[in-house]
Amino acid sequence: MKKILTIGEILVEIIATERGNGFRSAVPLIGPFPSGAPAIFIDQVGKLGHDCAMISAVGDDDFGHVNLDRLRADGVDVSGIRIDANGTTGSAFVRYRDDGTRAFVFNLRHSACGTIDLSGEAARLVEEAGHLHVMGTSLYAPSVIETVLSAMRTIKAKGGTISFDPNLRPEILKSPGMREALQEVIAETDLFLPSGDELFLFTQAKSAKEAVEELLAQGIKVIVLKQGSAGATYHDAQRTLTLPSMPVEEVDPTGAGDCFGATFVTFWLEGATPDVALRYANAAGALAVTRIGPMEGASTRAELDALLAR
Amino acid sequence: MKKILTIGEILVEIIATERGNGFRSAVPLIGPFPSGAPAIFIDQVGKLGHDCAMISAVGDDDFGHVNLDRLRADGVDVSGIRIDANGTTGSAFVRYRDDGTRAFVFNLRHSACGTIDLSGEAARLVEEAGHLHVMGTSLYAPSVIETVLSAMRTIKAKGGTISFDPNLRPEILKSPGMREALQEVIAETDLFLPSGDELFLFTQAKSAKEAVEELLAQGIKVIVLKQGSAGATYHDAQRTLTLPSMPVEEVDPTGAGDCFGATFVTFWLEGATPDVALRYANAAGALAVTRIGPMEGASTRAELDALLAR
Repeated sequence: MKKILTIGEILVEIIATERGNGFRSAVPLIGPFPSGAPAIFIDQVGKLGHDCAMISAVGDDDFGHVNLDRLRADGVDVSGIRIDANGTTGSAFVRYRDDGTRAFVFNLRHSACGTIDLSGEAARLVEEAGHLHVMGTSLYAPSVIETVLSAMRTIKAKGGTISFDPNLRPEILKSPGMREALQEVIAETDLFLPSGDELFLFTQAKSAKEAVEELLAQGIKVIVLKQGSAGATYHDAQRTLTLPSMPVEEVDPTGAGDCFGATFVTFWLEGATPDVALRYANAAGALAVTRIGPMEGASTRAELDALLAR
Repeated sequence: MKKILTIGEILVEIIATERGNGFRSAVPLIGPFPSGAPAIFIDQVGKLGHDCAMISAVGDDDFGHVNLDRLRADGVDVSGIRIDANGTTGSAFVRYRDDGTRAFVFNLRHSACGTIDLSGEAARLVEEAGHLHVMGTSLYAPSVIETVLSAMRTIKAKGGTISFDPNLRPEILKSPGMREALQEVIAETDLFLPSGDELFLFTQAKSAKEAVEELLAQGIKVIVLKQGSAGATYHDAQRTLTLPSMPVEEVDPTGAGDCFGATFVTFWLEGATPDVALRYANAAGALAVTRIGPMEGASTRAELDALLAR
């Protein structure tokens, strides 16, 4: 079993409980919820019982411990998550607008996880890992970009595999060095997990079909296109397979794509057929949207089995 | 009329609405409220209609604007508050425990206001100011300490006055260089505003009477000892004057000491007698505890007059 590693942001999420446009006045909130796209991803991998670890950093504060406690409880190797005595744990405030879009206030680049490196335990985890999952959101600071690219080169060089979810937010695209880093990551990607129009990010194609052909020709082995409530489509050199999403009542979509991706990657690495991996990933995405809180939506194998048996 | 200047932290406060010990799990919250001890102080000065300004920095985010909007609306000159496009506005999460003590999670040192300096508009404000108020909480980062001390020397050298509220929290006493900075500030202080045992911070005295004598002998002109609901005592070389606090229903004590101090400083600078300044300061402290939110408790002159007329 290949150990799955991810590197990137750990943060707490604070959620406005009433819809509206941003945070210019006091509103009711709930939090802190453990969060961060790669943290949600690896928590879902841990809940599936697959060997996994994360490299990151938190402050020595309640917000750091709320994440460490959760990840540890869910089976994630947290030895590579440094506790920075002088840092503060990252945070994100999120408020849904009436049209379903979200307003954010981030504290990320200047938080503890703005200074991730491969010293100590982190270097050992890179040696142990057989697979690296890269989140585009994690390329938010130059030192983190360097860490991710370095780990990717090491893991790839020893025959490991790379999955990549662009997971791009406009707030983060402005980060210095991000675009160059994205190009290097896509060139090494085995399993690509774009959402919607992210399929076109690294191509010149005019249609989805052309984009898929272009990406496969670049050396990507598998593409899984996430389309939220519209379902997901699997592509490799031999076949295309589309599954509709499962009908559930959506309460909070945050984290659903991360849980979907984590489940697909885990089943794919464990040798599941594409249709089985896609079915379980779909179920994980479906359960995730039914729970408030970004990481609250991660599911165990038994929970996925129960949903799929319905 | 001497322009009152303060320098230091601007942050938003997020308040847990249920009592308990810290933030290790998701709890109901309310915020963001404009906050930061010097920001509350200067907002209260502004609401009294006295010429005043603040030097600080915020991020270009909703949390920065919630503070800028409030301070501007309440009459504070915000030209010295830099908007840092790459920074994040400071924040403090606060939760009351059952015993009335508070648990905090701060993001301060790595926030925008961790990098305050005297460039541009800030330097002009130091030239204009006739009085500087120093909060001990503002000595949280080396660059801010340097900025406060530099402004203090300039204002003192041209005949201006200094007020100082130690306002010390254990979380902040660990900051490098803070103790040395406190010693330099107390040596230049004209009006000292300690709370409770802070009276003894800079003396060898065993009793309050000895401490007051020692501080007055060091060159401090006026000491106003704040004792929360137990009232306040004024000391100068000629007299001692104690006033009980005003009976009000306490909802949220945060910010009350800052509003008290700001009102005393303002009336003192305007030439009010000690008993008048103390009465208005007491009224400001009393009104502040009746309102939820740190800066929400600042009062206008009319509101203070109305309370005192009751």
